[in-house]
Amino acid sequence: MPDFVNLDCPSCSLLGKVMSIKPLNVAVVGATGAVGRETIEVLEERKFPVANLKLLASSRSAGEEISFNGKDIVVDELTEHSFDKVDVALFCAGSGISKKFASHAVDAGAIVIDKTSAFRMDEGVPLIVPEVNADVLNEALESREGSQGLIVSNPNCSTIPLTVVLKPLMEKVGIKRVVVSTYQSVSGAGKEGMSELWEQTKGLYSQQEIEPKVFQHRIAFNCIPHIDDFLDSGYTKEEVKLIEESKKILRDQGLNLTATAVRVPVMSCHSESVNIEFSDACSPDQVREVLQESPGIVVSDEPKDNTYPLNSTTIGTDDTFVGRIRGDETVPHGINLWLVSDNLRKGAALNGVQIAELVAKNLSVQ
Amino acid sequence: MPDFVNLDCPSCSLLGKVMSIKPLNVAVVGATGAVGRETIEVLEERKFPVANLKLLASSRSAGEEISFNGKDIVVDELTEHSFDKVDVALFCAGSGISKKFASHAVDAGAIVIDKTSAFRMDEGVPLIVPEVNADVLNEALESREGSQGLIVSNPNCSTIPLTVVLKPLMEKVGIKRVVVSTYQSVSGAGKEGMSELWEQTKGLYSQQEIEPKVFQHRIAFNCIPHIDDFLDSGYTKEEVKLIEESKKILRDQGLNLTATAVRVPVMSCHSESVNIEFSDACSPDQVREVLQESPGIVVSDEPKDNTYPLNSTTIGTDDTFVGRIRGDETVPHGINLWLVSDNLRKGAALNGVQIAELVAKNLSVQ
Repeated sequence: MPDFVNLDCPSCSLLGKVMSIKPLNVAVVGATGAVGRETIEVLEERKFPVANLKLLASSRSAGEEISFNGKDIVVDELTEHSFDKVDVALFCAGSGISKKFASHAVDAGAIVIDKTSAFRMDEGVPLIVPEVNADVLNEALESREGSQGLIVSNPNCSTIPLTVVLKPLMEKVGIKRVVVSTYQSVSGAGKEGMSELWEQTKGLYSQQEIEPKVFQHRIAFNCIPHIDDFLDSGYTKEEVKLIEESKKILRDQGLNLTATAVRVPVMSCHSESVNIEFSDACSPDQVREVLQESPGIVVSDEPKDNTYPLNSTTIGTDDTFVGRIRGDETVPHGINLWLVSDNLRKGAALNGVQIAELVAKNLSVQ
Repeated sequence: MPDFVNLDCPSCSLLGKVMSIKPLNVAVVGATGAVGRETIEVLEERKFPVANLKLLASSRSAGEEISFNGKDIVVDELTEHSFDKVDVALFCAGSGISKKFASHAVDAGAIVIDKTSAFRMDEGVPLIVPEVNADVLNEALESREGSQGLIVSNPNCSTIPLTVVLKPLMEKVGIKRVVVSTYQSVSGAGKEGMSELWEQTKGLYSQQEIEPKVFQHRIAFNCIPHIDDFLDSGYTKEEVKLIEESKKILRDQGLNLTATAVRVPVMSCHSESVNIEFSDACSPDQVREVLQESPGIVVSDEPKDNTYPLNSTTIGTDDTFVGRIRGDETVPHGINLWLVSDNLRKGAALNGVQIAELVAKNLSVQ
């Protein structure tokens, strides 16, 4: 058994078989950013079968060195010709970079795993959460001609944990409507977002006002109900991503899901207050049972011990933590729950690497 | 016209008449706490007709001096005999203090305005938000025998702004169901809560971990979905307060309202993400119009200018700010909105003083 196959890992166990994995040539685009660095760490941690690792970034960051499996790798400048002999390219920079360079990677025959919103809603682009719809990725890989390239999208960091939780409840009980309010950390806006919260907060201790650059307003000790741009409907793109991506991943265009996305002054992990109206009766205990048995979820729900999901206990972990599960009697079959997941890991880097693992396995059996 | 009558003030304009107001003997219980201090400031700011101001606190704080209208007033120790000749007693300490001492104030003939949860849900105790149900207070005052004392309760700080917003929508449109998620500041837990967030955050900059005392977990850069004690239902008392108090204030025991209450690392002002299902059609523009014409509300909703309610712009103000008003198509007549109010002012001190103003006017006409 190759030692990268981790039987505790949902994407490995989803495939349900142990096989000989062919090491792949991997590229990480945006290697020096928050998600890029986390991706490199997760590749190492999960012993991903890397033949060669190419780290790519803008000319500004080229020349930096990043450690991987005990070796320092020099970051190269990203160009149209960076993808020669690359099997899997993890795009961890902005949408603009993905739009400009992903097609070059595909032309070179690479499977692009794109963390940005650039292609998520494009027809024919699989939008994958391994616990939820690995089958969609496998189908897409298998229907390629020869070693054709492919773009696979990684959903938005608030969409991933929500679909991980909704999927089993949708299958086992049926969902009529979902109302979500998010509590999103600044790391969703990258290293710059974290630095702005850190420096701005520090500034308040010395009466130094630090002007917002990353966020629209001061984020230190402030909640901002505005993530990404506004649309004419009054919703933000972040809210629409959460709604539309969830429908695509859960394969239910009729899903009634509404959302309010809010940035809160926490460094990492996104939390969501979720109200669900089921189609059928489902007690809080039954919800706990369904979630406990589902991949990628830890039920953390012991109010009498003050145990429920928190940013501080979720950071650095891989699962979606769910707690505060309780009945809502304002509808026939309602519950409220609270979920937290590490937006840099499951929300971005980890989910991307889990997709890469599915790709590695699929390519090995082809 | 006595200069304390402020025609811009909702409670003054609600009464709709200008009268000669008799100055009252006022006591503030818990004068040295966060809400007590804010109450003293609001009494001064709003030129409340004070004949004599008695400041009361525990023996620990007795002897401190607090400035009021340019004079330093020495804080006295609170005892059973503190309420002699007091007309209005504003209780700003904890529930325990109210339960122990409010009856003594009532026995001495005072109108107790209690900021705590001690008596809020007691039958016969008016639970008052001046913009929403001033009539209930006036009826209770008028049905007293002679100069009998009375307990009037001030609702919870997250309930007040919610009822200010729901009342006009309920009257003009009709409400089927409300789903609320709160983003509550640490000042809801008093000076100690603010100090814990401030010191704990500062500690993180020097790698000093400061153990939580006020909150159940670290509050610095963390969201805690737990305010007040848990009940067997899995809801917290804070959530149940928001639900049950709203029903009492809005005089609708059948109101379908569910809530998740979350503490976030902000110093002051409570925010709420509110999803409302109306009984009849009501567009976002109509909601804006209804709210704009309602007392105590400022509509702050210009997404194209990044204008929506924020803690940082609401602090120190009296109104409930509402923005992010947009249709929710997952139900026949739905909207989402975002509200922010200063929990120390409208959520506590200001609402209490507004009640005292109604009392002062009522006593003047009796």
